Amino acid sequence: MREIAVFSGSAHPELAAEVCAHLGVPLLPTRVDRFANDCLQVQLQANCRERDVYLVQPLVRPVQEHLVELLLMLDAARGASAARTTVVMPHYSYARSDKKDAPRISIGGRLIADLMVTAGASRVLAMTLHSPQVHGFFSVPVDHLHALRELASHFKGQDLGNAVVVSPDLGNAKEAAAFARMLGIPVAAGAKQRFSDDRVTISSVIGDVTGRDVIVLDDEIAKGSTVIELLGRLRELDVASVRIACTHGLFSANALGRLSAEPDVLEIVCTNTVPIPADQRTGKLRVLSIAPALAEAVRRIHNGESVSALFGE
Amino acid sequence: MREIAVFSGSAHPELAAEVCAHLGVPLLPTRVDRFANDCLQVQLQANCRERDVYLVQPLVRPVQEHLVELLLMLDAARGASAARTTVVMPHYSYARSDKKDAPRISIGGRLIADLMVTAGASRVLAMTLHSPQVHGFFSVPVDHLHALRELASHFKGQDLGNAVVVSPDLGNAKEAAAFARMLGIPVAAGAKQRFSDDRVTISSVIGDVTGRDVIVLDDEIAKGSTVIELLGRLRELDVASVRIACTHGLFSANALGRLSAEPDVLEIVCTNTVPIPADQRTGKLRVLSIAPALAEAVRRIHNGESVSALFGE
Amino acid sequence: MREIAVFSGSAHPELAAEVCAHLGVPLLPTRVDRFANDCLQVQLQANCRERDVYLVQPLVRPVQEHLVELLLMLDAARGASAARTTVVMPHYSYARSDKKDAPRISIGGRLIADLMVTAGASRVLAMTLHSPQVHGFFSVPVDHLHALRELASHFKGQDLGNAVVVSPDLGNAKEAAAFARMLGIPVAAGAKQRFSDDRVTISSVIGDVTGRDVIVLDDEIAKGSTVIELLGRLRELDVASVRIACTHGLFSANALGRLSAEPDVLEIVCTNTVPIPADQRTGKLRVLSIAPALAEAVRRIHNGESVSALFGE
Amino acid sequence: MREIAVFSGSAHPELAAEVCAHLGVPLLPTRVDRFANDCLQVQLQANCRERDVYLVQPLVRPVQEHLVELLLMLDAARGASAARTTVVMPHYSYARSDKKDAPRISIGGRLIADLMVTAGASRVLAMTLHSPQVHGFFSVPVDHLHALRELASHFKGQDLGNAVVVSPDLGNAKEAAAFARMLGIPVAAGAKQRFSDDRVTISSVIGDVTGRDVIVLDDEIAKGSTVIELLGRLRELDVASVRIACTHGLFSANALGRLSAEPDVLEIVCTNTVPIPADQRTGKLRVLSIAPALAEAVRRIHNGESVSALFGE
Amino acid sequence: MREIAVFSGSAHPELAAEVCAHLGVPLLPTRVDRFANDCLQVQLQANCRERDVYLVQPLVRPVQEHLVELLLMLDAARGASAARTTVVMPHYSYARSDKKDAPRISIGGRLIADLMVTAGASRVLAMTLHSPQVHGFFSVPVDHLHALRELASHFKGQDLGNAVVVSPDLGNAKEAAAFARMLGIPVAAGAKQRFSDDRVTISSVIGDVTGRDVIVLDDEIAKGSTVIELLGRLRELDVASVRIACTHGLFSANALGRLSAEPDVLEIVCTNTVPIPADQRTGKLRVLSIAPALAEAVRRIHNGESVSALFGE
Amino acid sequence: MREIAVFSGSAHPELAAEVCAHLGVPLLPTRVDRFANDCLQVQLQANCRERDVYLVQPLVRPVQEHLVELLLMLDAARGASAARTTVVMPHYSYARSDKKDAPRISIGGRLIADLMVTAGASRVLAMTLHSPQVHGFFSVPVDHLHALRELASHFKGQDLGNAVVVSPDLGNAKEAAAFARMLGIPVAAGAKQRFSDDRVTISSVIGDVTGRDVIVLDDEIAKGSTVIELLGRLRELDVASVRIACTHGLFSANALGRLSAEPDVLEIVCTNTVPIPADQRTGKLRVLSIAPALAEAVRRIHNGESVSALFGE
Repeated sequence: MREIAVFSGSAHPELAAEVCAHLGVPLLPTRVDRFANDCLQVQLQANCRERDVYLVQPLVRPVQEHLVELLLMLDAARGASAARTTVVMPHYSYARSDKKDAPRISIGGRLIADLMVTAGASRVLAMTLHSPQVHGFFSVPVDHLHALRELASHFKGQDLGNAVVVSPDLGNAKEAAAFARMLGIPVAAGAKQRFSDDRVTISSVIGDVTGRDVIVLDDEIAKGSTVIELLGRLRELDVASVRIACTHGLFSANALGRLSAEPDVLEIVCTNTVPIPADQRTGKLRVLSIAPALAEAVRRIHNGESVSALFGE
Repeated sequence: MREIAVFSGSAHPELAAEVCAHLGVPLLPTRVDRFANDCLQVQLQANCRERDVYLVQPLVRPVQEHLVELLLMLDAARGASAARTTVVMPHYSYARSDKKDAPRISIGGRLIADLMVTAGASRVLAMTLHSPQVHGFFSVPVDHLHALRELASHFKGQDLGNAVVVSPDLGNAKEAAAFARMLGIPVAAGAKQRFSDDRVTISSVIGDVTGRDVIVLDDEIAKGSTVIELLGRLRELDVASVRIACTHGLFSANALGRLSAEPDVLEIVCTNTVPIPADQRTGKLRVLSIAPALAEAVRRIHNGESVSALFGE
Repeated sequence: MREIAVFSGSAHPELAAEVCAHLGVPLLPTRVDRFANDCLQVQLQANCRERDVYLVQPLVRPVQEHLVELLLMLDAARGASAARTTVVMPHYSYARSDKKDAPRISIGGRLIADLMVTAGASRVLAMTLHSPQVHGFFSVPVDHLHALRELASHFKGQDLGNAVVVSPDLGNAKEAAAFARMLGIPVAAGAKQRFSDDRVTISSVIGDVTGRDVIVLDDEIAKGSTVIELLGRLRELDVASVRIACTHGLFSANALGRLSAEPDVLEIVCTNTVPIPADQRTGKLRVLSIAPALAEAVRRIHNGESVSALFGE
Repeated sequence: MREIAVFSGSAHPELAAEVCAHLGVPLLPTRVDRFANDCLQVQLQANCRERDVYLVQPLVRPVQEHLVELLLMLDAARGASAARTTVVMPHYSYARSDKKDAPRISIGGRLIADLMVTAGASRVLAMTLHSPQVHGFFSVPVDHLHALRELASHFKGQDLGNAVVVSPDLGNAKEAAAFARMLGIPVAAGAKQRFSDDRVTISSVIGDVTGRDVIVLDDEIAKGSTVIELLGRLRELDVASVRIACTHGLFSANALGRLSAEPDVLEIVCTNTVPIPADQRTGKLRVLSIAPALAEAVRRIHNGESVSALFGE
Repeated sequence: MREIAVFSGSAHPELAAEVCAHLGVPLLPTRVDRFANDCLQVQLQANCRERDVYLVQPLVRPVQEHLVELLLMLDAARGASAARTTVVMPHYSYARSDKKDAPRISIGGRLIADLMVTAGASRVLAMTLHSPQVHGFFSVPVDHLHALRELASHFKGQDLGNAVVVSPDLGNAKEAAAFARMLGIPVAAGAKQRFSDDRVTISSVIGDVTGRDVIVLDDEIAKGSTVIELLGRLRELDVASVRIACTHGLFSANALGRLSAEPDVLEIVCTNTVPIPADQRTGKLRVLSIAPALAEAVRRIHNGESVSALFGE
Repeated sequence: MREIAVFSGSAHPELAAEVCAHLGVPLLPTRVDRFANDCLQVQLQANCRERDVYLVQPLVRPVQEHLVELLLMLDAARGASAARTTVVMPHYSYARSDKKDAPRISIGGRLIADLMVTAGASRVLAMTLHSPQVHGFFSVPVDHLHALRELASHFKGQDLGNAVVVSPDLGNAKEAAAFARMLGIPVAAGAKQRFSDDRVTISSVIGDVTGRDVIVLDDEIAKGSTVIELLGRLRELDVASVRIACTHGLFSANALGRLSAEPDVLEIVCTNTVPIPADQRTGKLRVLSIAPALAEAVRRIHNGESVSALFGE
């Protein structure tokens, strides 16, 4: 296996550039043409032959454009004799389509995994998949990172004497507990009930939060409904303050604006797995970079060193 | 497609016979030879050519023997020119190996699914998979049934005036809520926390249970630790009585004996997806048959009628 | 194999409805949800089990949305136990990406064919593929129709005493010759030279056109540059009149407006493989329906009758 | 390709340890968990990333447990990004299921080969397969060793002045002849007739054996019936003494005890492809190690040197 | 599944015609073009759509031409939407390449099986494969017939009072024993020794043959060396007469002439799995037709009736 | 990846030897046996383990023999643990079967590509494929060279003051234009009309050729009909002289003799992608070697250097 060759699709070139800077390699140019009939054509504009190729592309809005672009990039890398092609996918949005909860629906999380393999993916580097079972949808090796370390570093500089981590969902409190252990503080969790698909309620909070500085931890925030529901319960319990942390800051439907408008929310922290347009950012938002973590994972994958040893997966 | 041909492995021939009785077709003979070197050989002892073949085999103890036997049956059916081979798997135990929560471990739930397809499975009829994502591990169509209807029928004949359904786990309360709706009674749920792999605690119960007749509903009971933990909380809340219901009654480590020994447990209800030896059964145990449901699903699959229309999947 | 079940994606539901009307079967409902994270989910809202399923979806603008939607529909049909799933693709736009004329580019025509098969396509019904070799990109059977019969019927009612068919490209004049034979008139062809990718010139016209009523025949018109180039040569040769015919009327970059503005162009005839918005249509446009042809092909495919016998492929 | 990483399943860890000792590499730890539901989970407890991984596991009793364990190890190695995974299988017991001599039976030898590939095997290192055609059952490269060299070394130290090699089966005498050439002595063979599946008779011995020291050579001894049948013929021909040699010493049904009890059998020699419990061993048994041969083959496979050059395959 | 459609390649159209006559269906026309560059193109000249297609082609001389022709026929049938394509291969000559007895050689028997599947074969109908393990080389169902019934019928009309069946090879005497049982006469066998690849000797004959009318039975006769070797031993044992029977009469290197020239050979009987040119036939040759057996097998395969029930496989 | 290992089939060993000479590596020996039943067996007679194997074999007459031989070589290389196997195919004759222009015909160009991959091809090095779309028939990477550079070098030494390149076909004039640019001279093209499959006419020549020294350029010459048709038009236009150049000199049906007999043809230039028997060569023939180009491509493929950088693909 020869040198690393990193290319970026058009979904998040800033992140790709940052990863390359950490790796000390150039971000190689990709050309995407759109023909008169709206079809895309991709050209990888640097030698791929026998290279260890990395294609950086989170599946973010517009998802379908970025997905097809990625599949064409994979095809181009294979045709160009890449030795191995790794999809670096900081946000795999289709992971949410992971089950068949109605008759005759698609299971996008599995299908897209298969499509990537058909198009030429040798492996995938993913971050904080929506459910851990999605790992099993892939027939190629997946390195599955999370961003707890980055989020914890951010809060470690703050006064945590009175703090508590709160997971919106008891069922998924394992990650919040790990996060709390990193910070040396206790953990609590909302009793989230999903009695049907479109009605989520949090009836109570298990654990001691009254008078405390709360750090809400979730894997992703899209419309923010769950967090807003949780805020209601926390206020009833007279918490001292609220900060919100997540890995994937999708912030659709003006979620960022609405959360920032809540006066008792002091800070909203996410990572840059998903690009956030400058005009949507608010003063309370803090975006942490996972580029160093991705770069270190790429370096270890390329060198054949253990990834789990570092990231605890 | 011609006639149905149903064969059973050695895991649960009683269930297969019962399914056949409901279908009005004979259970065709299977011969399993074990050679001097401990290898198995399977012969399907009736014509399979162009038949719509169904192989009934839950993956129950001894799991590895039953799994390899099933794979050999699939191979035999394919070699015998079956038109289509459906695995009727009332209990897919490997579904619990559905994620990679430690480095370099196997994901058995996905692997076994792939092995069945390699051996010749055209489709799978499963029941109450451990997590809904496991559906996506299969590259062939899966019909995924549940046993709520059967369990509900059992309780409908009882006095439910003061009853409440309790799920041990808030996160999975959706199924308990559906069950409660069938019975026309309220639902509650334990706040189950799994902060690490080997420590499960239920810190409280969300919903009104004091003085009520509780029906605990879980998907499967193996060692019974979760239910026993829940019983502790329920007693603290002075419930009137407890009955326990689940789909898969694995009852390992004398779980049936220990649960039956609890004086306030009035009844333990499960289905026959897993065979329960006569000498382990207690007076409190009630086993419901899912053979009619499986038979009806097989009939609809064979006839090309909607399965979801009936079972609400 | 049981009944036909026809579904439409959102690319061209009018055409699908028309095909169904000719078949005398209902167009079954499809539900497409777009989640907050921009991912799509498809539900086929009628029983597919053991059905002979047809999914109608030309790959028209927005191509990537329609492509991913189609792939999800295929996945849903497979998961819903369709006996066979045929993609009815009246316009396969990615067929233009059929070669590797620069280093390290994708060959979309082959990749998308493979993706459809991965997603569950059993066969494809296509119309007038850009190059005949694209047929060989598919690993599943393809029925490849053309629309010459429909186009010829249109012109047969006109006075053809002085008419001639002109192909813009000598190399592809075979189809124009067949078309001319149908009409019983002579054929001529432009000497199209493509010395580089972006420079197309037509240096002369081979055959007698002076003073004649010309029918220009091409497979598709996108920006219309080739036809406009040909018009220049035809005018130099003092043709009497010009009518333009093609199968795929893509008409990007206001091609329809520009061609209609040419005073000596009497009529522009295309089929409805591609939907044409009402506000782009001009008085000179005439859109012929290929729905009867598609319906007849579907009927024959379903009944196992020869398709080539009818359509001459 | 980087370093060798050797793991052992639970079938024969002593052999794996011995192979590692010869290679001068550590035997890396494997963890096998058995859950309450009898399912297995495997963890390879050392970095596999980009390693040249070797999994040592003969398919010996209990065969099904060891087989599934091996398949899970393969899955774990693939998921852990092994560069290549070689199954070192000193005894492939399912090779005996190599044909379809009754209707509708499984062909286990082919099926298990396919399952190993599905689970992630890149190649196989096998020893003395039951029939040479089994090589062709694998879709991945197989290195097929035999143990004649080891068996010959053992006898070379003995007085062979009056010795003869006897194959129980004329049809397979080729290997016995090669063995005799190594020892510089003549060869004879029993006329084994298998007129039906369960009746084996040896009607005569072709070649001169009277008064000679016989070395019986077979590929494997399970129940020992063939050898005992041969002993009858040899005694009728007044042989001087008998020694027995085979590669795979399965010794089921107390074969070792029964053979050792024959007074004219001086010695029983086999290799350690199959583990032999200490309490079954008799004073006449001599077990030779094929660990040096396996280690040398592994070394050559890893280094890309010819294996056939050494072992004559 | 609809009607049978039978096509023949150019290897043995007479046999195909005879099979069709027995089935009462027409042999449909195939067109094979050879281009100026020596490439072949195949056209199946009748509708295949949804048909149950059978392609008759033994792999006989010139083998490579017939093989590629068959692969092109398979491709044509798949492309023409055949519902199922069965290769009727009365002689699979590549079955002799079934093991790797030298380093770095091809295993043609497995490779050609894979190529047929790649080209579109759904199943294979074979006759008397060289070794039974070759069955396991195919990943699609194989129906494996033999011709013992036909050969036995031929001899039943003769005086068998003093007759004995002799197999040239003790190791394969199972089939000869079955044949002898059909005729109600005893069986004997030559002690064939293959000490190296190019030296076959038959040292003795096991069983009573002196003064008897011998029927030699082998699966195929190519150069005839084994039979000629056996004739020497039989003469030494003063047999009364010799007749020779085999399934596949390849008769290369003038074997037919040489065997017919032996004065004590009364008759040479084979089947028509391999075409025998008129000018090679001798007065002693008798060719039996296996067309009725193939036709009956095709009929049963088409109708989904048991094939093993009839042919005892 | 370790050393290069180059083997040749029997199609064109001279070319393979020449490529090896340029690479400075030995041409390793291949043994091809033809058995009594006309089947082939291949042995690669040098270590392939972990080698970067190249198999040189153009698909030339007898095409089927050479194709099957190549497939067996691929199988042998895979079985011998080659790290990667590249087919070096200077002439892919089946590329002409690239479309389905009649019902129920084979598409040999796609099928043979799939067969090579099934047999073990990792990649293909091809030269001047008949149509550029054939590239997309392969599911493995293809490096597609052309021989314009070699042909141009030949003519550069001549007086080109009055020369013009003429393509027989306007539609494919792109390559001729590139060739003309290399030589610094103008280009013209015949107006080739293929109104049906068996009637090719060239009605006129576009561009100025009168009085000029013409260099006709085509990709291949088989029967030579197109060139002879073109010569007629060129003579009518009073050209000064004619020289003919092509990549693939198939020269079937005495094409070489007939073209050489034309008095105004001064020279016929082709490359050695196809072997030309000495007794067919004429005084006007000049054969250029593409061995240096193939060798350089092999060197770059082996070293992971860009091939397109050199050859402009």
